[in-house]
Amino acid sequence: MKLSCTQENLNKGLNLVSHIANKNSNLPILNNVLLKVNKGGLTLVTTDLEIGIKVFVRGKVDEEGEFTVAAKLFNDFVALLPRENIELEIEDASLFVKSQNQKTNIKGLEAEDFPLIPEIEKENEVEINIVEFKRALNQLIFAASLDSSRIEINAVNFNFSKDKLVLAATDSYRLAEKQIKINNNEERSLIVPLKTIQELVRILNDQEKENIKLYFNENQIMFVFDGVELISRVIEGKYPDYQQIIPEKFITNAKCAKDKLIPAIKSAALFCKQGINDVRLSFAKDEIVIASASSGLGENVIKVPAEISGEENDIVFNYRYLLDGLLNLGSQNLNLKINNNNTPGLLTPESSQDYLYLIMPIKQ
Amino acid sequence: MKLSCTQENLNKGLNLVSHIANKNSNLPILNNVLLKVNKGGLTLVTTDLEIGIKVFVRGKVDEEGEFTVAAKLFNDFVALLPRENIELEIEDASLFVKSQNQKTNIKGLEAEDFPLIPEIEKENEVEINIVEFKRALNQLIFAASLDSSRIEINAVNFNFSKDKLVLAATDSYRLAEKQIKINNNEERSLIVPLKTIQELVRILNDQEKENIKLYFNENQIMFVFDGVELISRVIEGKYPDYQQIIPEKFITNAKCAKDKLIPAIKSAALFCKQGINDVRLSFAKDEIVIASASSGLGENVIKVPAEISGEENDIVFNYRYLLDGLLNLGSQNLNLKINNNNTPGLLTPESSQDYLYLIMPIKQ
Repeated sequence: MKLSCTQENLNKGLNLVSHIANKNSNLPILNNVLLKVNKGGLTLVTTDLEIGIKVFVRGKVDEEGEFTVAAKLFNDFVALLPRENIELEIEDASLFVKSQNQKTNIKGLEAEDFPLIPEIEKENEVEINIVEFKRALNQLIFAASLDSSRIEINAVNFNFSKDKLVLAATDSYRLAEKQIKINNNEERSLIVPLKTIQELVRILNDQEKENIKLYFNENQIMFVFDGVELISRVIEGKYPDYQQIIPEKFITNAKCAKDKLIPAIKSAALFCKQGINDVRLSFAKDEIVIASASSGLGENVIKVPAEISGEENDIVFNYRYLLDGLLNLGSQNLNLKINNNNTPGLLTPESSQDYLYLIMPIKQ
Repeated sequence: MKLSCTQENLNKGLNLVSHIANKNSNLPILNNVLLKVNKGGLTLVTTDLEIGIKVFVRGKVDEEGEFTVAAKLFNDFVALLPRENIELEIEDASLFVKSQNQKTNIKGLEAEDFPLIPEIEKENEVEINIVEFKRALNQLIFAASLDSSRIEINAVNFNFSKDKLVLAATDSYRLAEKQIKINNNEERSLIVPLKTIQELVRILNDQEKENIKLYFNENQIMFVFDGVELISRVIEGKYPDYQQIIPEKFITNAKCAKDKLIPAIKSAALFCKQGINDVRLSFAKDEIVIASASSGLGENVIKVPAEISGEENDIVFNYRYLLDGLLNLGSQNLNLKINNNNTPGLLTPESSQDYLYLIMPIKQ
């Protein structure tokens, strides 16, 4: 194996792949990045056996071949090199890295022990604008369960129909759902591990004009963009049928401004009893009154101007869940609809129909 | 006690004082901020018994008086209020805070239990530009010992002579010294706790045109700027007589560029044996060659262009100490002077005579 490429391209590629390689310690080769040189250039590959990432790096190939070295060390090292041409060559179970003022060899492991990354047939393709997709995922991931023993909801659900992709995440206390318009031939519902989505959000760029391509079968999903292929297994099982818990009618609806409601909730949160996150919202004429108190700290009452329709009403939420929803709403004005302390409240942006956030109230 | 002031002024004042109040848990009133209202306005006071901070906040006074409330809670709460006028009033052992859309009461403790902050006679005054002073402290604090049992060097030394202030910090492995021109009448050497300097650096602003005023006696030092008074005890004892260990002559001198040397040292650091921070620097004709190796990782050799005068030579440094000095040098070009592995190396900026950084080499 022998190739030369620019520091910039190699550094960019290693930044993308090396994160998931860092987390494995049981099987040493999973700490490594696979360097695969063939005609067109260099492919960098890492995997944690659930997720595989491949990135293509352009370069001048002198000799094909493959090898693996510690991903974090190689990434940290290349990041420090000046923006020059770099030569990579394998000799005596080491990767030799040369550039103008330095020569380095990095011990490695043979490529034959590196796990195979599964392939997906690229028959059906779903295309989405990268920025729109990244924003959608950011509006969901905070609501997914962090409990890795509940694998079906330690995940984001991808429901592909003909004309839309419905994404959902829940931890059973709150639920976020986002709809994206797509063109698609194959209807399928897939549960994608939260870890995959977190990794994807980490490496997705913010190129307004680029699209991401999604491919899937019953066992895997693949995301392709900008020279990167991320492939992940999906979770066997059934995602909760959450549609049935979304109330059809609400007794009270408040329209108000996010930048007024957020500091009010944060302020009420300061006066909660220790370890208890209850904040009471009372919907009256033209305001939401938010109150909390603790005998040790004091009490706090704030009025937030709002357009209230329906009956006067009140409800108690865990302020953390409410804040999570407000902070990810993506719109200045919002609707907050409630019934009573037994059915979930619904938070939606005023400006669009494609996002909803459902919160279970706290029974008093 | 009754007063009104703007959210902006109160928030700014609380941001300055509340940090040191947060750290005390044994004596509950030390978690609190003292609010002292007299004719001119509101004075906020916090202390940890070693450091005291007073900040003056302008306001409209309706009734003089004083009270204390939890500093962190009050600071977090005021930060969330909109930029409006705020009314503060004491009633029933609580601070009542009112503004347009909210009313809050915060439980507190009577002011009479709050410790007295010592005063200093303002006879001798030393004035220094704030930005120059902050930059000087930042060039020193990283070199001070973090070992709180070595109180004389868990500190920064202030040596006031007629026309200059010489600041020094050391942990016995390396030493940083900075000189500042001043006009001063009272010669004195004072050991100021590192914690005081860290707090000072945290709250010093970056107002190019403002000066900070220093007052001191044999027991205390006070820093006054922008409505803030920070007073600290000084440490009894004798600061190490470091002048005697600065070599008068050097065998080898290298002039080189910081932005070439820093990545080279960082790169060598990646290939150090685990837990050992040795990096070898060889001074040859027109370069410094930096090398490190570890049987498990590989080896790394980098050449940094340099103007070498004197003899060819080599030395081993702990890369962390060398990097600390390089990163805080405040100049692109530098001189690195060495003798042998038994006497310290000297790092200075090429452009100025007011800063030096001394590092002990590692004996091989």
